[in-house]
Amino acid sequence: MALPVRTNMRHVLVFIQKFNSPKRLLCAGARLENKETPRGGRVFSGIQPTGVPHLGNYLGALENWVTVQNQYPSVLYSIVDLHSITQPQDPEQLRSNILDMAASLLACGIDPERAILFQQSQVSEHTELSWILGCLTSMPRLRHLPQWKMKSKLKNEGSVGLYMYPILQAADILLYKSTLVPVGEDQVQHLELAQDLARIFNNRYGDLFPEPRALLSSTRKVKSLRDPSAKMSKSDTRAMATIAITDSPDDIALKIRRAITDFTSEVTFDPEMRLGVSNLVTIHAAMAMISVEEAVSQSRGLDTGAYKKLVTEAVVQRLTPIREEIERLRSDPVHLEGVLARGTLRARELAAPVLREVRQRVGFC
Amino acid sequence: MALPVRTNMRHVLVFIQKFNSPKRLLCAGARLENKETPRGGRVFSGIQPTGVPHLGNYLGALENWVTVQNQYPSVLYSIVDLHSITQPQDPEQLRSNILDMAASLLACGIDPERAILFQQSQVSEHTELSWILGCLTSMPRLRHLPQWKMKSKLKNEGSVGLYMYPILQAADILLYKSTLVPVGEDQVQHLELAQDLARIFNNRYGDLFPEPRALLSSTRKVKSLRDPSAKMSKSDTRAMATIAITDSPDDIALKIRRAITDFTSEVTFDPEMRLGVSNLVTIHAAMAMISVEEAVSQSRGLDTGAYKKLVTEAVVQRLTPIREEIERLRSDPVHLEGVLARGTLRARELAAPVLREVRQRVGFC
Repeated sequence: MALPVRTNMRHVLVFIQKFNSPKRLLCAGARLENKETPRGGRVFSGIQPTGVPHLGNYLGALENWVTVQNQYPSVLYSIVDLHSITQPQDPEQLRSNILDMAASLLACGIDPERAILFQQSQVSEHTELSWILGCLTSMPRLRHLPQWKMKSKLKNEGSVGLYMYPILQAADILLYKSTLVPVGEDQVQHLELAQDLARIFNNRYGDLFPEPRALLSSTRKVKSLRDPSAKMSKSDTRAMATIAITDSPDDIALKIRRAITDFTSEVTFDPEMRLGVSNLVTIHAAMAMISVEEAVSQSRGLDTGAYKKLVTEAVVQRLTPIREEIERLRSDPVHLEGVLARGTLRARELAAPVLREVRQRVGFC
Repeated sequence: MALPVRTNMRHVLVFIQKFNSPKRLLCAGARLENKETPRGGRVFSGIQPTGVPHLGNYLGALENWVTVQNQYPSVLYSIVDLHSITQPQDPEQLRSNILDMAASLLACGIDPERAILFQQSQVSEHTELSWILGCLTSMPRLRHLPQWKMKSKLKNEGSVGLYMYPILQAADILLYKSTLVPVGEDQVQHLELAQDLARIFNNRYGDLFPEPRALLSSTRKVKSLRDPSAKMSKSDTRAMATIAITDSPDDIALKIRRAITDFTSEVTFDPEMRLGVSNLVTIHAAMAMISVEEAVSQSRGLDTGAYKKLVTEAVVQRLTPIREEIERLRSDPVHLEGVLARGTLRARELAAPVLREVRQRVGFC
């Protein structure tokens, strides 16, 4: 079921499609086909329910998700709540974060008629396949993967769930016989595990899983407004560091006004030497859907203070319809739950026969 | 649905009930009650589908299972195939082992009308709860548990599944809000993990799981016939070391005739100094359902050679009806599958509302 009112989103979608040239997204993976996955491949990607995404999430992943949904015949996007509990979560917060993420994805342009949008924990096949794949994975294989290395140190030895994280990710992907996975650089090793596990399973039990390939895209890396040497991140506790896609125009203006730059008033793009100013140029170009060169040329004659107003304008213009749509969707949780429930049904329709086949090959039936 | 012909098993059951005095099985756990588990407690136990059990399995666990089934109002026995794949398995062999184990359990006296007999992999809630509990378990917590310590050394670092084994066991138990778990000494630490996880979950999300207690019983430890210093074990590759409960009378006679004893011809019970002879006395007493003292007194005037005939007779007499029943059941796999399918349905009826509650408390819905 499409949302009753989407008109205010249409122009955003058209812009996104224009900006993301299809060519950038094609890679070897697109040629991979499996007789049980649709011609042209099947795409799987997941996002943790961290609540409302920030600008870094939007430009780094979600904008690309919209493009991908319009380019491939079969696309699954999952709100991966089973992954999120590998770190402690407040249940009430998690519940509302799941709905906020669903609202945000829809408002950003994910069309639940084109892409299967669903909540991971509602499809029991994910953990079942994860167990089976865990029996094919040696303990040392996981020790050096990014998820564990990054997060276990912060927490003084993490949980078993955190250690198993990349196996569940592999299960997410293989369960749908996915052929293509949009990945950032930090996820390449995790995708390699999924590829290894497809091979190991196929060798032991006969060909079943296509080897999923990376769907690379030149997404933009947005930096913290308070420390432009670091990625913009939800875990950054400084109030002015991130722009949520639901921030009001006033908040956006304030945050950009306070954004760290340097003592040179002219605007240039030099991401090595002038981190702060270059981050603003990146944001400006991305939000106004222009090239970096064009953004710099628009700044001619402006000092950084005046340029910040230009950047603010571009961000506000782009985010306003998204913010309004999120507000509208949030006010109707029953509708959001319905969208996710329909997604769950469609996901299970794909997952169930694959898991049935897996069980049969393993010898359970 | 009860089996159409069970008459030849009845006398075995009556004997077992006589022999296992209920008093021996009562322990603190029996007092533990939870408003959602039946008065008197709920018992859970699992057995790996290793095919037809041997005498060690029978006397060490299964005989006790029959007693327990007749003493407690709610009992679940699971053929834990998800556990068995933590070691490599041939799928064809695993499939037939599952049915052989089901046939053996029924033939040994498990009554699927009294106990819920089911196949673990058919109840997806086990792996779902296991994932959630894994997120509450620290990595070091599992490092020294018996399963990993024993098996990972043999195999040069085991699989992630082997490491997670005790978490899945905890999920098996907690999923049914079980209060009592028949355990051998080697499983005490695993049960402690289940108790810890019940506590950790209850502390974080509010009381839900009763803390399961050990259901201790003085089961007999049967030793290898070829090396009476070691347990009788399926993994013992020496043909004469174990007696399968389906062995023919001739095979049983041969194996016992070849059983290692010592150079003293008189029969005494001295499990420290005379391992081999004492093992035969243990087997004799258990199979003839008499005390060890009575077994020794029956041996008076016999040398070990003649005593072996007496032991053989007791074993053959006890195992013959079981063997015949297993043969009958094996010839009807559709019936066995039906018994397991009905068990699965009943297990899911108990598991589904518990997992629903877990999901709700964790914040997934």
